[in-house]
Amino acid sequence: MGYLIDDQPYVTPTSYWREGERIFWHGSSASRMLRTVTKGIKVCLTVTHVDGLVLARSGFHHSINYRAVMAFGTAEKIEDDAQKLAALKNFVDGMFPGRWQTLRPVNKQELKATTVLSMPLDEVSAKIRVGGPIDDDEDYALPIWAGVLPLAMTPGAIVPDARNLAGLDVPEHVRKFGVK
Amino acid sequence: MGYLIDDQPYVTPTSYWREGERIFWHGSSASRMLRTVTKGIKVCLTVTHVDGLVLARSGFHHSINYRAVMAFGTAEKIEDDAQKLAALKNFVDGMFPGRWQTLRPVNKQELKATTVLSMPLDEVSAKIRVGGPIDDDEDYALPIWAGVLPLAMTPGAIVPDARNLAGLDVPEHVRKFGVK
Repeated sequence: MGYLIDDQPYVTPTSYWREGERIFWHGSSASRMLRTVTKGIKVCLTVTHVDGLVLARSGFHHSINYRAVMAFGTAEKIEDDAQKLAALKNFVDGMFPGRWQTLRPVNKQELKATTVLSMPLDEVSAKIRVGGPIDDDEDYALPIWAGVLPLAMTPGAIVPDARNLAGLDVPEHVRKFGVK
Repeated sequence: MGYLIDDQPYVTPTSYWREGERIFWHGSSASRMLRTVTKGIKVCLTVTHVDGLVLARSGFHHSINYRAVMAFGTAEKIEDDAQKLAALKNFVDGMFPGRWQTLRPVNKQELKATTVLSMPLDEVSAKIRVGGPIDDDEDYALPIWAGVLPLAMTPGAIVPDARNLAGLDVPEHVRKFGVK
């Protein structure tokens, strides 16, 4: 999340989720980022997935495979408590389907301490690079190894909390990530 | 890389590398980001590693394990060709030790087409979250599964370029990433 305080740009990592043609993010109501961007200033939300390192036969043609989206706009704060709760449910259930209803319900204090923002996906730019290296024609004759080292965000072994009650199974919404 | 064009913040994904107490990045000399940030404007370079999803017993205490650094400053352009080359070598060899000397050398046109910027690491802020969920005391009595789903950027199976000359082995600087 890119935004401005005075004349200094800030880029703050933040979780986000999407509902239809809007993008949402949230955080502590005390957060400087959230307090700043609720003032109606312009922001840029950029999401990047790195998919691989591309090794070419010259330094110049080395590259990165990636997918990136930049969304521009102005943040709108959700003031209505029911709407805020619905958005937070979508955030949790978007990652872990069905988890929300298994949780201890949100209380008023928590809801007040949480700011939820959203922005329409009106002005959006995407950039993607895929595939192998593109070298200069004459460089293909050189005995230089070229190729792609794919990279992906992958789940590791699940770490159950040491204070889980006895007999609690790992829920399906966590197991679905594929690692025991 | 966060920066400003007129009054609109932009966040552009970019590769970076570090040399001592400076951070470097580069790109096409035609890039709008690079042309903009070489004008001496303030920038923010943020690097984030996501390490895991933290599932708590309430929605409020769900979190993300991560390491993030924000570096603030003003970009300086490397004008000297020898310094620019040395920086680019450090970038490639930083990821793939020894690769630079195996490559077809950079030519004058490529060097001109590449802009290399750097910034001193004078004003830097780091934020880290590690470990399991921190729930409210009374919530530990609830039969709700909590824990961490670790996430990591991992290499996949190497994809040699289809036009590699016969008999070229995958170099050690690629094999060291651990996947065949």
